[in-house]
This record gives sequence, structure tokens and C-alpha cells, in this order.
Amino acid sequence: MIYFDNSATTKPYKEVVDEVVDCLTNSFGNPSSAHRLGIDAEKKLNTARERVAKLLNAEPYEIYFTSGGTEANNTVLKGLLKKGDHVITSSIEHKSVKEALKQLEEEGVEVTYLKVDRDGIVDLKELENSIKDNTRLVTIMYVNNEIGSIQPVEDIVRIVRNKSKKARIHFDAVQAFGKIKIDVKKLDVDFLSLSAHKIHGPKGVGALFVRKDLKLKSLLTGGGQEKDLRSGTENVPGISGFGVAAYIAYNHIEENMKKVKDIKRYFIERLSEIQDVRINSPQDDKHIDNILSVSFLGVRGEVLLHALEDYEIYVSTGSACSAKRVGQNYVLPAIGLNQREVEGTIRFSFSHMNELEEVDKTIDVLKSLLKILRRVKK
Amino acid sequence: MIYFDNSATTKPYKEVVDEVVDCLTNSFGNPSSAHRLGIDAEKKLNTARERVAKLLNAEPYEIYFTSGGTEANNTVLKGLLKKGDHVITSSIEHKSVKEALKQLEEEGVEVTYLKVDRDGIVDLKELENSIKDNTRLVTIMYVNNEIGSIQPVEDIVRIVRNKSKKARIHFDAVQAFGKIKIDVKKLDVDFLSLSAHKIHGPKGVGALFVRKDLKLKSLLTGGGQEKDLRSGTENVPGISGFGVAAYIAYNHIEENMKKVKDIKRYFIERLSEIQDVRINSPQDDKHIDNILSVSFLGVRGEVLLHALEDYEIYVSTGSACSAKRVGQNYVLPAIGLNQREVEGTIRFSFSHMNELEEVDKTIDVLKSLLKILRRVKK
Repeated sequence: MIYFDNSATTKPYKEVVDEVVDCLTNSFGNPSSAHRLGIDAEKKLNTARERVAKLLNAEPYEIYFTSGGTEANNTVLKGLLKKGDHVITSSIEHKSVKEALKQLEEEGVEVTYLKVDRDGIVDLKELENSIKDNTRLVTIMYVNNEIGSIQPVEDIVRIVRNKSKKARIHFDAVQAFGKIKIDVKKLDVDFLSLSAHKIHGPKGVGALFVRKDLKLKSLLTGGGQEKDLRSGTENVPGISGFGVAAYIAYNHIEENMKKVKDIKRYFIERLSEIQDVRINSPQDDKHIDNILSVSFLGVRGEVLLHALEDYEIYVSTGSACSAKRVGQNYVLPAIGLNQREVEGTIRFSFSHMNELEEVDKTIDVLKSLLKILRRVKK
Repeated sequence: MIYFDNSATTKPYKEVVDEVVDCLTNSFGNPSSAHRLGIDAEKKLNTARERVAKLLNAEPYEIYFTSGGTEANNTVLKGLLKKGDHVITSSIEHKSVKEALKQLEEEGVEVTYLKVDRDGIVDLKELENSIKDNTRLVTIMYVNNEIGSIQPVEDIVRIVRNKSKKARIHFDAVQAFGKIKIDVKKLDVDFLSLSAHKIHGPKGVGALFVRKDLKLKSLLTGGGQEKDLRSGTENVPGISGFGVAAYIAYNHIEENMKKVKDIKRYFIERLSEIQDVRINSPQDDKHIDNILSVSFLGVRGEVLLHALEDYEIYVSTGSACSAKRVGQNYVLPAIGLNQREVEGTIRFSFSHMNELEEVDKTIDVLKSLLKILRRVKK
């Protein structure tokens, strides 16, 4: 099996699985319980919080665990924005931002969608010009999930801070966390969304970084867990597994990203053997190394995806969330791809668990598949 | 170890742990992915959905997975109620209903809190009289988590249906599910909240039953998972583990509850050997058999809890969620307990995994502890 769909989800580390089992079997208490079993479970949470915080250079008390990236994004947007507020975002956000904003828009929140250039990068001048008196939030995804574009986050923060005291800054860092070194103190960001299952942790768990002096209205209200921001019995196995994944990421981020960089470089090199190919995410400092979006002209992405599947090569056409809603892609048109290019797009997304030999096999299979599929098409 | 805190959380079944491991290790795909790994993961969700539905006699498509009972409750309340709406609830709800309603009240939703009698049962006459033209929801917990009172849910449904076409009915069934046979078709209820970790499933997963013809506004908005009601990559290991726990509960509900009934009966019988004890949840058809709330006069619950802990007997003073907020209990005063009775309350909550011998040991320890602790107090 060749798994090149690591931006959709990753295979949990063995160490993560072991930790989840340990929590389910031994530390099964409710962290809110006053007795020792509760305290054991709470310790698991504390350790995980420290580990996740460390990967961001955040304070542990600035980390709030959620059920995933979607909840983290929804918590910021719905916890902060009120009728009459203005929010600035990009036109290539993940649906958990895009759709939440659509809902808020219906409730009277004003939204500005920034255009992106052919690299998928927002226009900083447009950002600056869009900031108004009632701008309450700027929410931009750190790394795009389909094309891997890395936003100039330092510049974004500088521009927003210069023009407004009131505007808060949120980065959806789900695709950046564990891959790019993030230092929230240097970056001076207000909120960051994270997800465990993108860094070889378990599904069903994520986190929200909230800068220490800031407050949000809770989305899940109740028992007061996570300092009243996120009620509900804590998912101890998931959170603790997340902590393990974050710990491993912290200790291996450089070597892992070097390996992924080599894979992308080699993949692009070998793609030159195939005709009528457009690389939507070149290897440069504007794109992350674990995402390689490629348009194969003259073939439909879904068809190629399923053909690759027969060789046990797993890829994606775009984001997993819109995989089943063909024709709804909005990210690729936003960077200027025409209909034919959009249709033929495949996203290969790598992890350090991949190997160079997997690139060789994939290129070989692609060559023979494209020979057939492109002929069929004509 | 004697674990009598099963209403706070339960120890996951071995079969649940195995299922979680299988999902983490083998079926780790993203259910939204179009390839085989995605489809494998989606099958896991479908099986779990069928299993949870079966335990309620619901249709699988009426089950929406959430991150737990708190999210299920918040989804109903915040997804349905708007400014100007009226909602009826009881004065002994779990905090995930109570606090969410408090938040909604601040936003202009009108809330009526029904009183309960000494058994913790709502006054049906008061319910009937409270229903108004703008009553949009009646939300009552099926079984109370602290005293185990079982609400007359059939009567509640009948009264609401007779008086209003507009009012929807929601039962927080977290403490009832898997213990009481629920038939949503016969019951004719609109929404039910469930939680996995109360029935020996994993933490971080729950479900909301939504009657097929009904819609709610989504609380977590994004990729459109769970038919657009609950976005976010599905917690496949948690959900599938929940399915296994529901499957086991379905197949053993009668024998399990018989065992728990015997444990409660024997516990109450042996409590007669201890003086100055008030049973807050007698064994009758108004109280569930797995919860036994007892006030030990002349001693503080927290002190007794920690003293029992030294003998590896784990209990609770009230709900886990308010365990660390001493003095904030609102359920026990609502059923008429005075301050001294509230202070001395311990909740023993059983599972079929408990044994009669554990009652013997607990009573013996209680006797000797109370001898010392009550003396200290005087």
C-alpha cells in the first residue's frame, strides 16, 4: 500500500495507539472526579497539554482541547463574532471556516473574502485596505490543505496590529502544525486551530490555542471543563494520544520535513517524464513540502484516483471533505486553474512514513494509466 | 479496587478497546475519502450507527454522532431555540442543559424551570400549565445523574403533544441509554442525547437522535459530515467503539440490570446497619437501579469520599462535573434535602461489572470510617 493522502488523515503512530489503550484500560476515570482515578486521568490531560503547548511555544494554559479542527475553528468564529462585526478571511479557507462564516453572515456578520494569487497567497495590500473600524477578526488558514500554500503569517500579523487594536487574528493551523515550527510568542497571534489526526494522532481530537489574556464565548456549554470554554467530559484517550503525537512531532520535526522535502523534490523531478502536467504547488518557500497538487490534463481526477486505487496507491482529488461533492471545488479556480485543469487534479500528500521508492512505483503506474486513460478520453 | 462511580464514567469493555485499536491501526482512513481506505472507515461508521439505532429502535439515519452528551444537548438547544422562543426544563438538569439554557436566556430565550418532588420527579400539572404558544421545546433529563430519578417520559410526551403542535421534545438520555429499554417510535420523542462512556464505551463520543422529519441548525459547521448537522472528520475509533458498547448493551440489558438491581437491593439492606442515613434514591420504579444516593448525617461527603479512596473504593459526592465545585449542588436541595443532608451525600453508582461482595466490603469500611469521622465531627 502506498498512502499519499496524509493531508486527509494520517496513520496513528504505534506509540499513540499504545497510549490510547493505556487510557482506555488503566486511566479510565473521569478527570472531573475527585478521587484518584479522576486525578490520574487529569494528569494525562496535563501532560498532553504541555506537549501540545511545547510544539507552539505556548503556555499549557493557553491550550484548550476540542473534538477536532472543525470545532476549534467554529469556537473562534462563533465565540467571537457578533452581528455587526466585520471579519476578513481568504477565498481558499477550509469549509469549517467558510461554512461557519456563511452561517454567521446570515446572522448579520459582515465578511470580506481576500483574493489569492496563482500561488494561493493572499494579497497583503488588499488585507490592509480591508481592515475597518468594526473589523473584529482576521481568519486565514496558515497552510492550505489542497495546494499547500503557506500564508505570510508574520506579515499578516504586522499589518493587522498596525491598523487595528480591536481586530483579533486567527490562523487555522491544522495543516501547518507539526510541519512548520510555530512560535506563538514571536508570531503574536491570538488564536490557532489544531487537529491531532493530521500529525499521526487519533481522530476526534484537536485543540485551540487562545492567547492568555483573551476570552471566547463557549460553543459547548455545561460542566465547565477546559476552563469553561469547552464543556463535556474530556476525551482522555484521544487527548493523551494527541499529546504523544505532538511529542514525537516536536522531537523529529526537522528530520521528518527533510524526508518529505526529498520526496516532493523527487516526485516533481520524475513528473517531468509525463506530458501535459501542471504542478499547482511547486517546491518553493510559498508551498509546504508535504503537499503536491498536480493537474493531469485530459483525464478526470476521480477516474485517475480510482485507477490508482487498484494499485493500492491512495490519493485524493482535493480536500477529503469535498471529495464526494464533485464540481464544488473553489480552491483551484481561486488560484486561476481552468475547468480542465481543475478536473484533472490529484493531490499527493506525504508523510515521513513514505519512501522514495513509493514515488518510483507511483510514477510508473501513472505513466501506464495515463497512456490508457488519456486515449479513452480522446 | 471497588469502582462505584459508574455514573461518572465506566471502564470500557475489552471488546471496545480492541475495536478502537483496530480502527486506529487498520481502518485509519478518512471516511470522506473517495478511495477504499475511506470506504472502509465509512463502513465502520455505518455499523456503529446501526448498532446505536437498534438500542433505541430508531432508524440508523436518525442517529448523528457527536463528541459526547454535552455536544448532543448543546446541538439541540442551540440548534433549535431562537430569541423569543420559550423552553420548558426541570430544575435538576445536567449542567450541559442548565448552562446552555442560561446562555440562551441571555440571548432572549424564555426558560421555565419545573420544580421536582422529593423523588426528583417533575410536576406534570405544572408542565401542562407551562406550555404556551411560543413553547418551542420541552427538555427534560430521562434519568437524573445524581439521584437516579426516572421521569415519566410517556406522560410528558402525551401532555406536550396534546397541548402543542409546535413544541418539540428532547430527553437527555445519557444516564438512561443502555439501562432502560427505549423505543423512540413508541415513545414518539423528537430528540435524545446519548453518551458512549456511560455504557462502557470510549470517552469523546456520543450521539443525538433526531426524528427523521426534523432539522436543526448545525453547531459545528464545515465539511458537511453527519448530513450537515455535525461537521468535522468523524472520530472513527470512538464511534466504532461506541457501536460495540451499544451492541453489548443491547444483547445484555436485562441480565445486566437484574444484576445491578440485586446490588442496589443488597446495598440498601446492609445500609440499615448504619445509623443516621437517608436514602435519597430508594429502590422503586421512580429510581434507576444503578444509582444509589445516600446522605450520611454528621459527616462531609468529600471527607468520606477521600477516606473511602484509601481503601480503593471509588465513589462520588454528586455529579462528576460539579465534584470540584463544592457547595454548588442544586439537585439535592431541589428534592428537599437540607444543608446537612446535602453535605453528607455520597453517590454510589453501579455497573454489572460490580459484585455483591464489593457491597460487603464497602459497608464494612463505611461502618468503621463513620465511627471515626462522626466522632471527629462532634
